[in-house]
Amino acid sequence: MKIKETSAIILIYCNDQPGIVANVSKFIHENNGNIIHLDEHVDYEEKVFLMRVEWEIKNFSIEREQIAEKFSSAVAAKYGMNWKIYFSDATPRAAIFVSKLNHCLFDILSNVYSGSWNLEIPLILSNHETLQPLADKFNIPFYFFPITSENKLHQEQQQLRLLKDQRINFIVLARYMQILSEDFIKEFQNKIINIHHSFLPAFPGAKPYHSAHERGVKIIGATSHYVTKDLDAGPIIEQDVVRVTHKDSVADLIRKGRDLEKLVLSRGIWHHLNRRVLVYKNKTVIFE
Amino acid sequence: MKIKETSAIILIYCNDQPGIVANVSKFIHENNGNIIHLDEHVDYEEKVFLMRVEWEIKNFSIEREQIAEKFSSAVAAKYGMNWKIYFSDATPRAAIFVSKLNHCLFDILSNVYSGSWNLEIPLILSNHETLQPLADKFNIPFYFFPITSENKLHQEQQQLRLLKDQRINFIVLARYMQILSEDFIKEFQNKIINIHHSFLPAFPGAKPYHSAHERGVKIIGATSHYVTKDLDAGPIIEQDVVRVTHKDSVADLIRKGRDLEKLVLSRGIWHHLNRRVLVYKNKTVIFE
Amino acid sequence: MKIKETSAIILIYCNDQPGIVANVSKFIHENNGNIIHLDEHVDYEEKVFLMRVEWEIKNFSIEREQIAEKFSSAVAAKYGMNWKIYFSDATPRAAIFVSKLNHCLFDILSNVYSGSWNLEIPLILSNHETLQPLADKFNIPFYFFPITSENKLHQEQQQLRLLKDQRINFIVLARYMQILSEDFIKEFQNKIINIHHSFLPAFPGAKPYHSAHERGVKIIGATSHYVTKDLDAGPIIEQDVVRVTHKDSVADLIRKGRDLEKLVLSRGIWHHLNRRVLVYKNKTVIFE
Amino acid sequence: MKIKETSAIILIYCNDQPGIVANVSKFIHENNGNIIHLDEHVDYEEKVFLMRVEWEIKNFSIEREQIAEKFSSAVAAKYGMNWKIYFSDATPRAAIFVSKLNHCLFDILSNVYSGSWNLEIPLILSNHETLQPLADKFNIPFYFFPITSENKLHQEQQQLRLLKDQRINFIVLARYMQILSEDFIKEFQNKIINIHHSFLPAFPGAKPYHSAHERGVKIIGATSHYVTKDLDAGPIIEQDVVRVTHKDSVADLIRKGRDLEKLVLSRGIWHHLNRRVLVYKNKTVIFE
Repeated sequence: MKIKETSAIILIYCNDQPGIVANVSKFIHENNGNIIHLDEHVDYEEKVFLMRVEWEIKNFSIEREQIAEKFSSAVAAKYGMNWKIYFSDATPRAAIFVSKLNHCLFDILSNVYSGSWNLEIPLILSNHETLQPLADKFNIPFYFFPITSENKLHQEQQQLRLLKDQRINFIVLARYMQILSEDFIKEFQNKIINIHHSFLPAFPGAKPYHSAHERGVKIIGATSHYVTKDLDAGPIIEQDVVRVTHKDSVADLIRKGRDLEKLVLSRGIWHHLNRRVLVYKNKTVIFE
Repeated sequence: MKIKETSAIILIYCNDQPGIVANVSKFIHENNGNIIHLDEHVDYEEKVFLMRVEWEIKNFSIEREQIAEKFSSAVAAKYGMNWKIYFSDATPRAAIFVSKLNHCLFDILSNVYSGSWNLEIPLILSNHETLQPLADKFNIPFYFFPITSENKLHQEQQQLRLLKDQRINFIVLARYMQILSEDFIKEFQNKIINIHHSFLPAFPGAKPYHSAHERGVKIIGATSHYVTKDLDAGPIIEQDVVRVTHKDSVADLIRKGRDLEKLVLSRGIWHHLNRRVLVYKNKTVIFE
Repeated sequence: MKIKETSAIILIYCNDQPGIVANVSKFIHENNGNIIHLDEHVDYEEKVFLMRVEWEIKNFSIEREQIAEKFSSAVAAKYGMNWKIYFSDATPRAAIFVSKLNHCLFDILSNVYSGSWNLEIPLILSNHETLQPLADKFNIPFYFFPITSENKLHQEQQQLRLLKDQRINFIVLARYMQILSEDFIKEFQNKIINIHHSFLPAFPGAKPYHSAHERGVKIIGATSHYVTKDLDAGPIIEQDVVRVTHKDSVADLIRKGRDLEKLVLSRGIWHHLNRRVLVYKNKTVIFE
Repeated sequence: MKIKETSAIILIYCNDQPGIVANVSKFIHENNGNIIHLDEHVDYEEKVFLMRVEWEIKNFSIEREQIAEKFSSAVAAKYGMNWKIYFSDATPRAAIFVSKLNHCLFDILSNVYSGSWNLEIPLILSNHETLQPLADKFNIPFYFFPITSENKLHQEQQQLRLLKDQRINFIVLARYMQILSEDFIKEFQNKIINIHHSFLPAFPGAKPYHSAHERGVKIIGATSHYVTKDLDAGPIIEQDVVRVTHKDSVADLIRKGRDLEKLVLSRGIWHHLNRRVLVYKNKTVIFE
């Protein structure tokens, strides 16, 4: 794959008003930017406008450091936009939280190791020591935080300090078997990606494969979503499913589900990494 | 497609015990039957044995009318089997219940009209007159039973009489917007096939597409199942799904869902028609 | 579903140049149009720009009849655009070509009958009389054109006259078992939608289910595409697949394939109807 | 997952004759074996009978070492069966062949490392040194065999010696970019599993993603199959697909395809490992 030029990405979310697309693209065009992706979505019921635009900044007439300020005054202020700017050459830093299962972690490591993802993993964090040897193989610092009902909040405070020290941009719960406190979540709003091993909203909570088997469904699924204070109820980023039959025992569902989980989580991370996700009204817009 | 020989089909359900497959196949083999499908399933947790066997009866040494009795004494009694025998040349008779939507009915008519299904439809029954003209086009008697909370039980009694008069074997609820009473359901246990427009157990009850849109799922589904007294909780026969995105409004979900609904219902009917479904513990075994 | 306001739709295809999005949206915005969908795509390898924009014309300051001319002079001419304008309240007229199989025709009739599609079918045309009774049920004129190698070109001339008389906008080959001549195709460039019963480019030509069975594939498919002079090689509009196993005979593949074929064809028609398809370099852009 | 009892598995392939199921199950039943899976398939066109039966041997009245001989004389000889017996506690030994891409290897390592598969990997073999460090991380001996048109046959002989020394049961080509000679393949008939990055028979040979992009398909796929002397034409074990759109560049297809490839290959290996594959007439029967 050839090296791509550095691009700027702006994500916009505001009340729907006429002329936004025209003005945003005019701003880029007049400053000599070359738009490579522009995607917008209007939610007519909610009267919400959402947009992702990406352009090459090589010949852009505004200095990289000035773009935010200029865009703010020239365009964003006028429409009362919630917006963010990113640059494609910045490498996000993610902390991976795990418990004992390794399949999701393995898939994440695979994507980073092969260079498919532009992502740094400064640390893996766990409530068990099980996956320390795997982290070691890839020379990623592994932090062991045993959790009990007594020490939970204290441990979370320690974790938050560590995450801050390591300038972590977002967190991946790769089958991390702990429920995070509301206070913890607040620090990483729409920045904690969880994988749930069911097709939400079916089978939230514990043991979804057992419930799916008991109910006799013909299809099982997995869901990656941002974590909110309501368990398994945050904005869904990605879902996928696989057929099962009466021949599949719970163990078979777990086996088939493992592949789903790792793919659905990895796709969710990829969308997040590439600044393709906008959250509003507890839903996501995925600009593919 | 060439004409197939008439075959006998036996569906068996009993406690798991050694030797069942051997003895059933021995019975058929010794009487000169040619097995064309044999499929068995053991649920080890529940210790349940389930089997479907189909054989050509052309040269079978037992007369068609005697097979049930002989099988009972030679095999079934020994294992305490719940079992049923069917012959492939018997044409089941189904009543289709509809309200106002026609897509599922259309698909059923298409399959019958083309000869793909071995099914007779002696009547279409509805709580609205909307689809009378469509029934007329295909010369199928249409019965209008307006339903109110007051007349519901009375109307159901009338319906049951009609179904009995017409020797109806099973009922299809092709987007019929009425909840049947427990008494009605009892008369057609595991013989009423409903289509629910969601991926059950997600979004049971009314307006599932609205709920799916509100929840922001990335995949929607449809489920065909046998009707039990618990709403949308009966044994699932078939499910399927389709991807949706943030771009899809509720109207888009309804449009995409229509195709799912008709296919999932028609596949459920096909399995039922071909005696490929066994129900146990509120689940189905589908012998494909 | 509420009645939607009438909208104008412009489809654009030209060399990629900076500022196109800005100028198109400016044109609409300045004339008081409310954009409800805007989707653009740039093929960087081919340096091609493609765009679909739809806006409500209720308060548009340019008269409906003048929009094309104004857009041409204000925007299109500057960029050397290939472009077309459509209005959502115009009802396209399609001719359906069939042979003996009815499942695709049934699905089309279902969509029109239920009002899901904004489409008129002034005629059904066939090289067999088999489906005349089905056309009659829906009061659609049925034209029988028997085809032999001798009369083929002559018959096609008659067909073209009929299509012209009936002001047909596009043609659907709903399992029509005749290959159209190059001359015929020229008259309806990118306006003849065919369904092929395989996952193209696998198994082009005759008897794809037999070939799929022989090859032992685990998945079969169907493809809707625009007809070009090269058999089964035209621009693909839509494809879908379904799993099969070693248990599936050729007859089973045909049965499972029927559902695929009708859905894939109907989705292709829907995209075409809704002006969501742009063709370039023998490929389609589908603005979903 | 609880430890399962050791089971014996017999795979059978012979001409279809009456009574086979009865006699095989009688043999197991009379010797006190508990059948846990029995699946049979008859190909009526080819008049071929295929069967997989698995039973627990804990209380079996025939010694493990004697089962083959007794089955042969008591059952197999009578029907002229091609058959094989396996025991679930034997761990197959596979050699993984790779070139430069690591995603398939990573997925294989993940499944072995987590204990999901009962498989030993005594060696990884490559025509490039690229993946040596990854093999080292998992302490798997890595053998570098550079291949040129001159040394190819010689190198293959060396490879075969190594595979023999290491008592390798089967080979996985995990994106190995070399075509094996006919002589090499003969030594591992139906024991070399390849992953091809297209939905075969579409796009065989080199650069299938480029061809898929050029053709404008709406779905791409991957295929795992046994290697035969005819390139990409061997018996298909597993296939899967993913949707793509006009927005996907060749690089996007490669990215989306990576996940397909690794899953489809791993599923193929799993079927092979678990003795669920029978090959006949260049097709596979997968007993799921």
